[in-house]
Amino acid sequence: MDIAEPVNRLIDQFRKLPGIGTKSAQRLAFFVLKMEDADASQLAESILEVKRTIRRCSVCNNLTDIDPCQFCTAPTRSDRLLCVVEESNNILPVEKTHTFNGRYHVLMGSLSPLKGITPDQLSINSLLKRLQSTTIEEVIIATNPNAEGETTALYLSRLIKPLGIRVTRLALGLPVGGDLEYADEVTMAKALEGRRDL
Amino acid sequence: MDIAEPVNRLIDQFRKLPGIGTKSAQRLAFFVLKMEDADASQLAESILEVKRTIRRCSVCNNLTDIDPCQFCTAPTRSDRLLCVVEESNNILPVEKTHTFNGRYHVLMGSLSPLKGITPDQLSINSLLKRLQSTTIEEVIIATNPNAEGETTALYLSRLIKPLGIRVTRLALGLPVGGDLEYADEVTMAKALEGRRDL
Repeated sequence: MDIAEPVNRLIDQFRKLPGIGTKSAQRLAFFVLKMEDADASQLAESILEVKRTIRRCSVCNNLTDIDPCQFCTAPTRSDRLLCVVEESNNILPVEKTHTFNGRYHVLMGSLSPLKGITPDQLSINSLLKRLQSTTIEEVIIATNPNAEGETTALYLSRLIKPLGIRVTRLALGLPVGGDLEYADEVTMAKALEGRRDL
Repeated sequence: MDIAEPVNRLIDQFRKLPGIGTKSAQRLAFFVLKMEDADASQLAESILEVKRTIRRCSVCNNLTDIDPCQFCTAPTRSDRLLCVVEESNNILPVEKTHTFNGRYHVLMGSLSPLKGITPDQLSINSLLKRLQSTTIEEVIIATNPNAEGETTALYLSRLIKPLGIRVTRLALGLPVGGDLEYADEVTMAKALEGRRDL
């Protein structure tokens, strides 16, 4: 009632985005109102463009504009290492370390009995097919460090180990640059459990 | 290089929005990628729609889809009270109090010698014209409680008082529900200065 209807509609649209509450949505909408028309058009066009051009890689399920994706086709990457992640956006943090040079496999989710997500809803079958037909020697499971991610990691390791392939999991512990004072007890316990000799 | 180009373009577009850094922009972009096509189209269309339909009110400069805007035409609102705000989005917090029932005037900014914003860049002339031709008895200056807002308030009061119109300013003090411990010293000083008898 107090705000013009098209603005209300835009606020509602922004509120559907992750991490955007009512106040942020209002701020974004008013920012769009004050933007140059050309800039707003570019923003809208970029949204439409990704939906038009980005698809799942037929090999690894990564979101990509070329199929197979760049990670699957790069000749300089090793075919002996495979990193399994829950979603496409989990590839970026791994890439940023500049220490992994293998291939990826995107599960498109994680096992969650609570949310009713079962193994057949994830791309586990295609993962097993890849493992049978390629030269992969180690699978690094880089699912998220939470209950669903751990469950998924355990489930996958039971499927993959019988194939004679090494299965590893990202280390849990204190974040670098953090402070003991702010570590929660579960992380702290994992940090103790995983302690290493100096 | 690691992210598909259309996705990078969308991340760049999101990063231009206020309060959205690189990480948030990445999260939003990946969310858009996983949205239903129809929902993404609606988001893009909402952005284009506000740019197409929303204009400045010819009376008060409020952003609106009807001209004059709802506040300027509402017959139940008082023509004796005028609330001056810096921007359209500052109207909403005033409306939410349900205690103001006058008209508005949007300055479209605030005076800032640092940013080179001078009185002629704000809608001050049209404010003075409104004051001369209407029945306004009190102008409430609701500019922001910062240096620019205070400067603007002082400047306006010097222009308006000679017209024989009462000029008031929003109270400065401790936010309700806050805690003395977290109040900065300037706010605290204003709270002391503005103390009221009980």
